[in-house]
This record gives sequence, structure tokens and C-alpha cells, in this order.
Amino acid sequence: MFKKILIANRGEIALRIIRTCKEMGIKTVAVYSTADKESLHVRFADEAVCIGPPASSESYLKIPNIISAAEITNADAIHPGYGFLSENANFSKICAEHDIKFIGASAEMIEKMGDKATAKATMEAAGVPCVPGSKGIIKDFEDCKKTAKKVGYPVMLKATAGGGGKGMRAVWSEDKLEAAWESARQEAKIGFGNDDMYMEKLIEEPRHIEIQIVGDQTGKACHLSERDCSVQRRHQKLTEETPSPFMTDKLRKKMGDAAVKAAEYISYEGAGTIEFLVDKHRNFYFMEMNTRIQVEHPITDEVVDHDLIKEQILVAAGVPISGKNYFPKLHSIECRINAEDPYNNFRPSPGKITTLHIPGGHGVRVDTHVYSDYVIPPNYDSMIAKLIVTAQTRKEAINKMRRALSEFVIEGIKTTIPFHRLLMKHPDYVSGNYTTKFMEDFNMPEEPKGDYEDDDDDE
Amino acid sequence: MFKKILIANRGEIALRIIRTCKEMGIKTVAVYSTADKESLHVRFADEAVCIGPPASSESYLKIPNIISAAEITNADAIHPGYGFLSENANFSKICAEHDIKFIGASAEMIEKMGDKATAKATMEAAGVPCVPGSKGIIKDFEDCKKTAKKVGYPVMLKATAGGGGKGMRAVWSEDKLEAAWESARQEAKIGFGNDDMYMEKLIEEPRHIEIQIVGDQTGKACHLSERDCSVQRRHQKLTEETPSPFMTDKLRKKMGDAAVKAAEYISYEGAGTIEFLVDKHRNFYFMEMNTRIQVEHPITDEVVDHDLIKEQILVAAGVPISGKNYFPKLHSIECRINAEDPYNNFRPSPGKITTLHIPGGHGVRVDTHVYSDYVIPPNYDSMIAKLIVTAQTRKEAINKMRRALSEFVIEGIKTTIPFHRLLMKHPDYVSGNYTTKFMEDFNMPEEPKGDYEDDDDDE
Repeated sequence: MFKKILIANRGEIALRIIRTCKEMGIKTVAVYSTADKESLHVRFADEAVCIGPPASSESYLKIPNIISAAEITNADAIHPGYGFLSENANFSKICAEHDIKFIGASAEMIEKMGDKATAKATMEAAGVPCVPGSKGIIKDFEDCKKTAKKVGYPVMLKATAGGGGKGMRAVWSEDKLEAAWESARQEAKIGFGNDDMYMEKLIEEPRHIEIQIVGDQTGKACHLSERDCSVQRRHQKLTEETPSPFMTDKLRKKMGDAAVKAAEYISYEGAGTIEFLVDKHRNFYFMEMNTRIQVEHPITDEVVDHDLIKEQILVAAGVPISGKNYFPKLHSIECRINAEDPYNNFRPSPGKITTLHIPGGHGVRVDTHVYSDYVIPPNYDSMIAKLIVTAQTRKEAINKMRRALSEFVIEGIKTTIPFHRLLMKHPDYVSGNYTTKFMEDFNMPEEPKGDYEDDDDDE
Repeated sequence: MFKKILIANRGEIALRIIRTCKEMGIKTVAVYSTADKESLHVRFADEAVCIGPPASSESYLKIPNIISAAEITNADAIHPGYGFLSENANFSKICAEHDIKFIGASAEMIEKMGDKATAKATMEAAGVPCVPGSKGIIKDFEDCKKTAKKVGYPVMLKATAGGGGKGMRAVWSEDKLEAAWESARQEAKIGFGNDDMYMEKLIEEPRHIEIQIVGDQTGKACHLSERDCSVQRRHQKLTEETPSPFMTDKLRKKMGDAAVKAAEYISYEGAGTIEFLVDKHRNFYFMEMNTRIQVEHPITDEVVDHDLIKEQILVAAGVPISGKNYFPKLHSIECRINAEDPYNNFRPSPGKITTLHIPGGHGVRVDTHVYSDYVIPPNYDSMIAKLIVTAQTRKEAINKMRRALSEFVIEGIKTTIPFHRLLMKHPDYVSGNYTTKFMEDFNMPEEPKGDYEDDDDDE
């Protein structure tokens, strides 16, 4: 087992990793930028090394500084957390060259899964369903018609140069295809000076459902069921839950089997996540693979009674997995508490936390690196806490989340707590009837004047 | 289901009950003495009623004030928590007379189990093993010899007027009985002017292991396995765990069956605990029954994935239980964090909390009513928080507790945190080899000078 792990990250995930290392009897080294010297991850690690100024490019992304920190502290492994260098093939390679175990995927694996086209081709070869579409640019309308027939309606025509919805057309039947083809191309020509088009199957009422997998050094893999991350704003996840309210036992088996097959096909080592889009007919399609721990992993921890960071460390140390898959025994929800103002278009709101009261009690877990009087630096991402609740049923978990949110007090800055309070009462969220389009239709009300009032009375 | 529950208690348990009520959609009424007006249970309840001055006898124990508070707020049930009026038969009766559901045992049940002799006789009738002994006072030495034979060696001779170990003799074989009988009587005569003696079986290496039961209104009961509460100081529990490190599947089945049989024999309604002494041969003997929720119930919550307060409320509302027993799937430990100075004979240390940092993360639960700047009043018991950790194995749970304790910061007052840090490293605790005598042999070291230093390095 490793003797000392350097955590090449900051914030709650650095603390999360330090905690598990402590519990495993492994020494820890924190690295920090000058902006983070008061952070808890620095205080709770056995050793801490300053690696540069606030700018990430000069600190948390600066590979030579991190490798130096590992060498002077004699760390025998590096945990990259998520973000920063966690999916940087070069960093993984340099760690290997310095005989420091990178707790994550190999350089080769990161490269393979980091490139969308290669990843898709690999998954197709492994027999994992991918979104069908044209092979590159469509030659002409005849090609378009043939491709649409092969892909199956509805289809989405997309301008290769497109963006912001321009040059895109959803087509539901062949008789509407030609008009769409002409108008989309015209729009693209005017908008981008380029009318090249490609086609993908249109995913109806898409849900973002991902499968957590763990693979070991013997080539064996298992899955730990799914997480539903459909509530996203501009591709940023806001809340996640497991099980997915849209999941069935049959679909879980199919998606789980596909994910394990994919992981074993590529001999994947470590914890990873295979993200799928699931349409309203419960067809699922590979989106991408994340070759690292995810922000939202704690909900999986909770429902399968495991510690995923511990599993990562064990697998990296060469411990084989049992190979058995894990299924949710409870229901868990995570709300990401960000230093953002939900009443002002989720604008970042760094600054000093003047008052902090964290919820507790039965079924409540909080992962955070902040405390009263902590100053959130403006340099990094705005997530300051993860509030995770777990209960026997989805309904109970939602009620518990509402209770926990009602207790959470963060003063001095704006946070996404008011958004989550509304979300947990939104009929479509409560019924589980939400897709990745949910946030497009969600409107924050005006910011209430005066103190926050618990509006439980209106039910 | 109840519409509004008044919580006739304070501190963490009041908050614990309010949280579950919120999650169940039940309104809450807090009551408080003037000493507690800044307490979180007051802030988090839907309504709050001041019921008197700091002295418990004038507030939390003042039945008319509490009944009035329930009547003016239209509460249809009262949860008494633990301590205060939770095992007061008269209060249970008065609630019933006012048509307010007392979430606890009936007056009759409290009386039956509150009187030691009646409780023991009832348990014997139900077939639950009780500590064998003489029927009252021993007549003469012949009677003594006969009784010892029947009870079985080793036995304990005890002066009825005795105390502080005086007039007590442990006797391991018949040839030692006469000398012990004479010397104990002489000691009792000199010490108390009364040489009446009785006899009980000597429980070798006793462990305090209790079984959690729940009974419903149909007369059905189930158990939720055990809690080991052997680490006690002057009969005050300091830490508890489940499963007991001394437990076997066979013993759990026997003790569980006995507890369920006892509960069903008396048609027990509600949550209750049957406390047993278990000797080194794994014989178990009824000690007493607590007809209320226990301080240490959260460790049971955690290992059986239930919410015991919710179960209490459901059963009180007439919902029948399934009748199935629950077995621990994980290992959970609770440390009671008291405002006491462990370096000064656990002397109470009320006052203002100037800094508070509560541990979090995977497998950590904290139940507390305190916060930064909270002033602990000197009027009530000194427990200010319960730190509960849960993991897959006992070893992992101990490591997690050590990690969580290392993060816990409470400044301004003295707490039992340093004691628990030492306990979690004590060889007899770590090996699970501890009895109710553990604290008699435990010596706190001198208080270290300067800041607390994490001494993990010495391992």
C-alpha cells in the first residue's frame, strides 16, 4: 500500500481524499496556491507545499511544481481529484516516468477516451450503442435521405460550423426532409459562410444518465449503478441523484452490462464514468467517458455503502476487485452549493463567508472545505460544498433535502441554496419527470426582499 | 398521521425530532426555558412556547406548562425525547386524559418497567433470563449455602444496607463461603449497623449490551439488534457501538428472541430498549427496560438504514410494523461529546463556544444543537453533540472516528473530545476487549501544554 499520497487538487475534493487517506493510515501531502493557504485541505494534510501563485496555470496546472512537491516530500502516489490535471495524459505519463503512481487512468487511456472520435470508435467496437449519424459531411440531398433512413427518424441536421442553435433542424419524417435541408444550409451559409451539414439521430427527451465503473489491474471491471445528472445549466450539473427516477431494473442491467463490457474491452484501470444519453423510449447512447472520479460520486458511495476514493486507491495499489456489481439499496441526492447568485444568472459570488451553519442529523452528509470567516478566492470554480442526503425512498430523500436546505445558512456571499430550495419543490423534479432540457424552461423568481422565509406553510 | 407534534425536550434530541417531523410533513412545537431561547430547537421548530425559567423543575419537568403549550398550539401529540418526562407515568396518563398522544409507553407500562422488582418478575414470567439470587434476605448460613448452590458459583454476597463496596464479597467456591459470610456480615454490622445479607450471581467480565425493540399497537414486536454500551463512567455511557465486538450470530439470535418475546409478552408499544448484562461465557441477564428512545439510538439508525424517531411516530399513529427483525449491515460508533473537562475528573464546563468546526464527509453524522457563539447553560446535562461514524468494518469505523475527532474543533469550553481521541487508540478498546470495568482502570494523562497536536505520527 502507498505510504504517502500527494493530492494535486484543492477544495472539497482535496479534503475528501485526505480524509480517506487518514482513515487508511496513508500520509498526505497537500499542495496549494498562495490563494489557498487558509484552506482546510492545507490544514488537515500531514504536509503542505506551496506550488505557486493563484493562477491555476502557475500552480494547480503546473506539472513541474507538482512533481517537485512529490519528490521533496517522498510521496509515492499522486491523486489528481477531478478537473485540473486529472485527465491530462502528459501528467499521467510524467508521473509514471518519475516512478510515482498516478491514481487514475494511464496516459494511453486518457488519450483514447479524451478524443471524441477515438472514444466513439472504441465504444462501437466494444458493442456499446453510440448515437447513430452520418459518417462526416453529407454529400448531397440523396446522401441526406439515405442517411436519414439508415439513422431512423427523428433526425437532427447540423451545420458543421454551427452554434447557438443556428443551422440546426429537427426532422420527424421524410416528407419534411428536403425543406429542412435547404433552409438549414441557407441559414448556415448566411450565418457562417459554410453550408457543410452532418446528421445525428435526434434524442427525444434526453436524460443524462451515467454508469460508475471500477476496473482493476487484472482487466476485470464492475459497475456501481447509475447517477442521473439531467439537471444541468449550460452543461454544468447542478444536482444529481441515484437511482435515476427514469431507471428500470431491465435498463440498469443493459446499461451496466454495456459499461462493464466497455471497461473490460479497453482494460480500464481505476474509477471511471461512462456517460450516456437515454431517450424517452429508454434507448441509450454513449456520450463520453470520464477517466477520473466525478464530483457527484458521493451519492454512489451512499447507496452502495462504499468509499469510491478508497476503491480508487486500492485498485491503484494493485488490489483486485471482486468483480461483483453494486446496486442501489437506498436513494441519494446531491445538491452542489456554489458561490453563485441564482437570482442574477448564477453570477459567481466570491468573498468572505461571515456566517456558516451546516445541516446535520440523520442521512445528511456535507463535503466542504469552507468555514466561518473563510474567504472564497475568485480564481477557481465556484463550488463550495456538496450537500448529500440519503433515505429509503426518493420521496423521503427529497423531503430530507428540503429539510437540510432549510437549515443551511451561508452569509456574506450569494449561493445556489435558494435555487435548490425551489428545485426540490418543482413539480417536474418532484415527479422525476425531467430531462436535460429542464433548466431551459426553469425561471428563477425575483429575489425575495428581507429574510428568507421557510414557505413550508403553503402545502 | 399527526398534524402537529410538541417536543417536550431540549438540546440535540429536540432538534433530532424536529428534523424527522419536518421530513414527514408534520408541524412542530418547541418548548423552551428562558435559558434555551437561543437554542436551535427553538429556531427550527414551526412554533415555540416558553414554558418557564431555567430550573428543569419549573420548565421541562412542569407538566401543566407543557400541557398548556400543547393545548394553545393545538398539538395532537407530544414527543418526550429522553430524560425529563420521557418515563414519567403520570405525564403519559395526563397526556391521554387530554387526548394528546404521548409518543412513548403507556402509564401502566412505564410503571411496570420503572419498578425494578416488578420489571424483573415480569421478565421472569416472560422467560427472559434474570440475574439469579436469593429471594430477599438470607436467613442463616445454611440458607446461604443452599442459595449459593442453586445460584451457582461464583456468587456475590451483598449487605442490604451496603454501598461503596463495603459488606460485599465475591465467592468462587463453597469452601470459601463461610469465611466470606462471616467477614461480610461483620463488616456490614460495623459499617452500617445492619448485617442483613442477600446474594446474586457474580457476573464475570460483565458487558452492557442492550437490544433495541419496537412494538406496535397490534401487540407485534421486532428487534433491531444490539448496542454495546460497556464503556461507562459512573453509569454514564461515554461511547457506544453496534455490532458489539463481543457478539456472535448465535448470541444475537438468543438475545433478540428474548427481547422480542418480552416485548410481546407485555404488549409493548413504541420504541424501547432492553438492557442486559452479558458475562464472559456469553450468558445474558436482564438488567432493566427503558421505555423511551435512547441517546445512543443513531448507531442503530445507521446500521439498519432506518430512522428510529420516524418508527416511533409511525407506531404511535397506529401504523403496524412488518414484524421482521433488523440486523446490522455496517459498523457504527457514537462518541458523546460533553462539555466536561476530561483532564479534571470530567467536571462540567458550561460557557460560550467561541469556535466550532464540525467534522463531515463520508460516513460521518453529527447530531448537535450548538453553534459558534452558542452559550451552554449550566442547568442541564452536559452533552452537546453526538458524533456518529459508520463504516463497513469495526476497524474502519474506529479509523473513521479517529479522523473525525481529529477534525472536531470546539473552543471556549472544555470537552470530552481529548478523552475520545485517547479511547480510540486504547489497545483494549481497539481489540474490542472491554467490559463495564473499563473506565475503572482508565487513567487520563496530564493535559498537554500548548495546542493539540495530532499524534498520528507515532504509529
